[in-house]
Order: sequence, then structure tokens, then C-alpha cells
Amino acid sequence: MMHNGTHKTLAVFGATGSIGRSTLDVVRQHPEAFSVRCLSANNNAALLVEMILEFRPAAVAVVDPVAYQHVRDAAGNLTEVLCGEEALNELAARDDYDTLVSALVGFAGLQPTISAIKAGHNIALANKETLVVAGEAITLLAARHGVSLLPIDSEHSAILQCILGEPEREIARIILTASGGPFRGWTRERLRDVTPDQALLHPNWSMGNKITIDSATLMNKGLEVIEAHWLFGQNADSISVLVHPQSIVHSMVEFSDGSVKAQLGVPDMKIPIHYALSYPGRIPANYPRLDLAAIGTLTFEEPDIDTFPCLSLAYEALRIGGTAPAVMNAANEIAVGAFLNGELAFTQISELIAHCIDRLPSTGADDIEAIIHADKQSREIARTHVAHFTTLSTPL
Amino acid sequence: MMHNGTHKTLAVFGATGSIGRSTLDVVRQHPEAFSVRCLSANNNAALLVEMILEFRPAAVAVVDPVAYQHVRDAAGNLTEVLCGEEALNELAARDDYDTLVSALVGFAGLQPTISAIKAGHNIALANKETLVVAGEAITLLAARHGVSLLPIDSEHSAILQCILGEPEREIARIILTASGGPFRGWTRERLRDVTPDQALLHPNWSMGNKITIDSATLMNKGLEVIEAHWLFGQNADSISVLVHPQSIVHSMVEFSDGSVKAQLGVPDMKIPIHYALSYPGRIPANYPRLDLAAIGTLTFEEPDIDTFPCLSLAYEALRIGGTAPAVMNAANEIAVGAFLNGELAFTQISELIAHCIDRLPSTGADDIEAIIHADKQSREIARTHVAHFTTLSTPL
Repeated sequence: MMHNGTHKTLAVFGATGSIGRSTLDVVRQHPEAFSVRCLSANNNAALLVEMILEFRPAAVAVVDPVAYQHVRDAAGNLTEVLCGEEALNELAARDDYDTLVSALVGFAGLQPTISAIKAGHNIALANKETLVVAGEAITLLAARHGVSLLPIDSEHSAILQCILGEPEREIARIILTASGGPFRGWTRERLRDVTPDQALLHPNWSMGNKITIDSATLMNKGLEVIEAHWLFGQNADSISVLVHPQSIVHSMVEFSDGSVKAQLGVPDMKIPIHYALSYPGRIPANYPRLDLAAIGTLTFEEPDIDTFPCLSLAYEALRIGGTAPAVMNAANEIAVGAFLNGELAFTQISELIAHCIDRLPSTGADDIEAIIHADKQSREIARTHVAHFTTLSTPL
Repeated sequence: MMHNGTHKTLAVFGATGSIGRSTLDVVRQHPEAFSVRCLSANNNAALLVEMILEFRPAAVAVVDPVAYQHVRDAAGNLTEVLCGEEALNELAARDDYDTLVSALVGFAGLQPTISAIKAGHNIALANKETLVVAGEAITLLAARHGVSLLPIDSEHSAILQCILGEPEREIARIILTASGGPFRGWTRERLRDVTPDQALLHPNWSMGNKITIDSATLMNKGLEVIEAHWLFGQNADSISVLVHPQSIVHSMVEFSDGSVKAQLGVPDMKIPIHYALSYPGRIPANYPRLDLAAIGTLTFEEPDIDTFPCLSLAYEALRIGGTAPAVMNAANEIAVGAFLNGELAFTQISELIAHCIDRLPSTGADDIEAIIHADKQSREIARTHVAHFTTLSTPL
């Protein structure tokens, strides 16, 4: 590993996505603290080439073969260029960087994270599916290799900050805040006709399409509940969700004496990314400052789990345990894709997920093979059902 | 000192006041964690006798000679009973307890705190005047004797909780929240006719008379700004005040990366008292839990320093340094007493304080004698002026 004082060298996977770009913004603003050794992208060759020119990584991986050709032709003399999904594992396993920033989307984030942990790298984790589907295996593996799993979504970053220095046994409850998404206050009836364009307009955060739809269904918060379970060792009964439309309080922790600590800030993903890369210290930065007097009012309300059943489905999957969260996650990925393609109504997303959880009994999830199998089965069942609807144009 | 695992033995000074009674509530609920070795009271003999019967302290001090007689007659066979202000110093200096809870009112809290620090006891400090008038001397003394100064007002307890585990150099700003008091939103014109009864009705906290008037003038927040300076090493420019009428967010800290941490809870003094006695750990307790969904809305606004000049006077005194905060505090004690006696209008409180700060040039405040001298001079000037008004019935 390349250590130089407190300087950290990074591998940024999913570099051309929203979190990846924000991560490179953080690096750009703090060249004394951070530098880039490896990058990966799926198919955005043009942006990756720009990044190569600016950050001069030692190596990059491009998943899509056509994009790979473009990157190799444009920047192959500046950096090593690898192709395909397996290239992510190969780069992750190298020893020439300190921390993997995993900003890959969905299930694809799992294997490179495992490779990086086995190579002894700390993980800054934006890819929440990694812990949702394989939390038990990943946390055991991280403990065995002595590496830290550092969340870079705003909620878990808030919790990490709130528990700093506190005795773990005195954590009574984690309170994840949720914006409530663009359809907060809507009825289930009205949600039936939601279009992808409506669902992609998130009130506070600018994010990728998958996570924006997950925010609209509250599945994003469900995934975060499961992630919080694995990151902070709290069970389902000790993790609650509170709707907070302004997204200023990023999450809270209640302690055994009734005291509550919260972390607040402007909704800017650079702040939790910066924190994960600085943890357990802090590095001064000029991100926009919170001005609560200008904001004036913060509101809080219970989530509407009848209208947004995805949140309850996530609690159900966490309580079932084993492969149930992997099944849920796979069904959700298929459902969101189908919704974005116009193959599924918004309210059918949760119905499809519930169907997959019911159809596939949970098995133990301590080995990755069982999880991959459950993921595959769930996707098949989900795809079959989507095809079934699309043909019949009737509800499940 | 009496140590038994994590059990702490306490001396509670000002036991019959609001904070003292809350402290004994905390002890009552956690007999395994805390017990009482000494108590002091000013003149409430009846309540002190009840406390002696319940908590069986080894010794008590009673300041008022008549009350002393009552206590000695009623409970002199159960405990050692001492009389007078000097008895507080004597008890404070004994070595048979761990932590002094200083809930004395005003300047009277200073000397016993010094005696306790010199005897090596940790200090749980509700008496904010101790640090306001003698912050430099007290913090130096505490450092020399290796004792902790633990705040038990809700704001500084919040800050202590927010900075736990954080690097001190990364604290960018302390944000003290203020309820705004009962006259928030009033004009200075309307404040002229405020009666003591109106000023004693605090919207959120049940406290003693002095501190309740200080809350109405915002001087309480000014005292807290100075206290925060000494407790947390921040200068006046790095301490700000934010009005938050619901008193749920007890205070906040902004760090060098723009992240803000806050501590929240129901407005119950038992929680910060309990925290000071448990610090740096936590001890489980059944205080009322915060339900933010039930509360619904939290609001924040800038303080109105034109209408409530006491806050600016405190910043001015802190920036002048030396004996200026002692002069300010003494003038405020006289002014509040005169207001409660009907000798001074509400708006004349700040005028009297400004007059005393202007009249008495600041000198160095690193020795206690200089502070006692400044305190005395300021009181004399303030009393003369009050007498002057009362005779003339005209504004200053």
C-alpha cells in the first residue's frame, strides 16, 4: 500500500456515476490528502478518458467491450486499460492503493468488494447492495482481514459520526431519516399512474436512476435499514425510520440514557464521501455550510408504510434473514428496471418483490455461492412475472 | 476517594434548588451508580432534612444560621451539620467523595469549586458564573490538578456529547441554541412594562428565578457563550447563538469539513445531569424519550440582539476579557434582583450592566482576588445606581 503521512490512495469503482464523480470532486479539492490509483467505468468512455487525463491513474477497468476500445485508443499510452467485469476483481486485489471507493450499482458491487477486502483494503461503500445481500459474509470477511467498512451514503455516515467515541452497548436505537421521496403524502390509488419521469424527480438529492426510484418507493430506506443492521450491529427492532422532507438531519442515534445525537448538513454527497475518506479524523473542507436560520423549519413524521410497502418488505426480509434480503434486492432491481422500461406500474414494484420473497424460502447466507444462487433465482422469477404482465397487461 | 467499580460518590451543593433536586432524582433512580456523601443548602431546612432522611449523607452544610439550627435539631443525630459559607469550602475540600455537583446560585459557587478542585475532585458544574467570572483561573487550576470540569446545563452537555471522540482542532464553531425566552418576537417598547411574574414564565424549562430572568433577557445565553469559551477553548467568533423555541436541539457543533452534529432530547435537566455523572460513558436510564414525529416541527432563527442587548454585552465582555465578564455578571445579579423587587424596569437590566462595564476598566483575571475585587466594585456601582433610580423614578 502507498502510505505517505495521512495521504490516501484510492481505487474508485463506478467512477463515472454520480457518487464516483463526487468522489473525484473531493480528490480534486484535496490533492494533498487524496490521490487516485485506479478507476473503473461501465460504458462512459468519454468521461473516463477525461478522468484519466486529469487524475493519471495507474490503471483503469472498463466493463463494456466497445467502451474499452475507445478508452484504450484514447488514453492507452497514459494508463493500463483492462476490460470486463473480471478486470474489476483484478484491480481490486492489487496492493498499490489504500481504500476502495465502491460506487458500483447494484449486485455488481459485491465481487470486487470481496477481492479488495481479501487484499486488506479499507472499503468506502456507496454500493449498499453489497451489505444488503451479503452483510453476514462481508462483515465476517472484513473482521477477519482487519479492514474497515466505511459508509458513504449520508444516513450511515451520520450514524458513524454520532457514535464516534460512544460505548457501542449504549446505542439504543438508530433513527434513519428519509426525505419521503417525491410522492410523500400521495395515496396508493394515485401512485398507480406514476410515470418514470415523475419518479425520477427527487426533491433533495441528485442521484442515479436506480436509487432515485428506490427513494420514491422507500425501498432505498429499506435497503439502508438492512445496511445499518450490518454496519452497526443493531437488530430490526432497534432501527427506525423517520420522514424528514428537508434532508438536513441525515440520521440520528438514541442512546441508553435517552439522549439523541444527530448529524446535519446541506444535502451534498461530497460531505459523507469526504468523511469516509478522512475517518476517524476530519480534514478541513470548503463545502457549503449549513445555515439553519435561513432554512428556518425542519419537520418530522412517521413513514406511511401502507402506501409505501417496500419499507415493510425490507424489515420483513431482515427479520427472515439468510438469503431473504438477497431475494428482495434482486426482485427490486428487476422491478425498477421494468418500471423504467414502462413494463410495470409503480405500485407493482412492491407486489413483484413480495411475490419473490414468498416464492423463495430463505437459506443460510454465510457463503457467497448461496447468495449468488438466491439472487439468480429471484431474478428469474421476477423476469418471468414481468413478461407475464406485459403480455396480459393485468395486475399480478 | 470512595471508588467502588463505577460507583460515584457525590457532594451536591445547592441541593434544595432546582438542579440540586434533579440531581437527587438522578441518584434516587440509580442507587447502584451514584450515592450522596455531602449536601448543602442555603435556607430550606425542611427539604434538607427530608433529603438527609432519604440519602443519609455523611455531612451537610447550611448557610443560613436559623435554618442551620432547624436542621441540626431535626437531623443532627443522623449526619454532621455545619453552618455558614465557610462550611461549604470545608466540605468541598474533604476527600471522602468523587465528584462535586455545584448547583449553587451566582458568585457564591466560586470558592467551594476552587476548594474541590484543589482537593482533586471532578466538578459537575451547573453554576455557570464560576466559569463566567473566573474561567481563566478555574481552567488553569483544573488542568494543574488533573480534574474534569463537566457541564450540566443542557447546552454545554450537548456540546460535550457532540465533540466526543472528535479531534479538538477540527471544531470550527459551537452553535448554542436558545429558546428565545418568553418575550421572543416582542419589541423593546413593549418590554418596558414587563412584570416579574411575566418574566418568570419560561416556555420550556422549569428553573430557579435568577436563571429564568436571565433567559428572558438572553443574558443566560450570554453567560453560556462565555462558559463555552472556557470549557471548549473556542473564541468569541467561533461561538454563535441560534434561537430554537422548542428547546429540543440542545446545541450543535460545526466541524472543519462543514458537518454539524447536534444533541437532542426532551427538555429535562435530569438528562444532562445524568450525562455529567456518567461521562465519558453512559448509564442506561428511563428518562422520557424524544418523539420527533409527535413534535413534528423544529424552527430556527437568528437572535434579536437589538431588542435583547444582554447577549451582545456578554460577547463584548468576553472580547474585552480580564475582569470584564466578572463585572458584567455582578451587575447582572444586582439588576435581576432589583427587577424582581420592582426597583428596575426589564429594559433597564441591560442598561445597568452596560453602565458598569463602561465604568470599570478590565484588569487581568488570572488571580481570584482581582476577580473578587471587580465583582465587589461592580455590585457597589450597580446598587448605587439602582438606589438612584428608585429615588428619582427616571431611566438611567
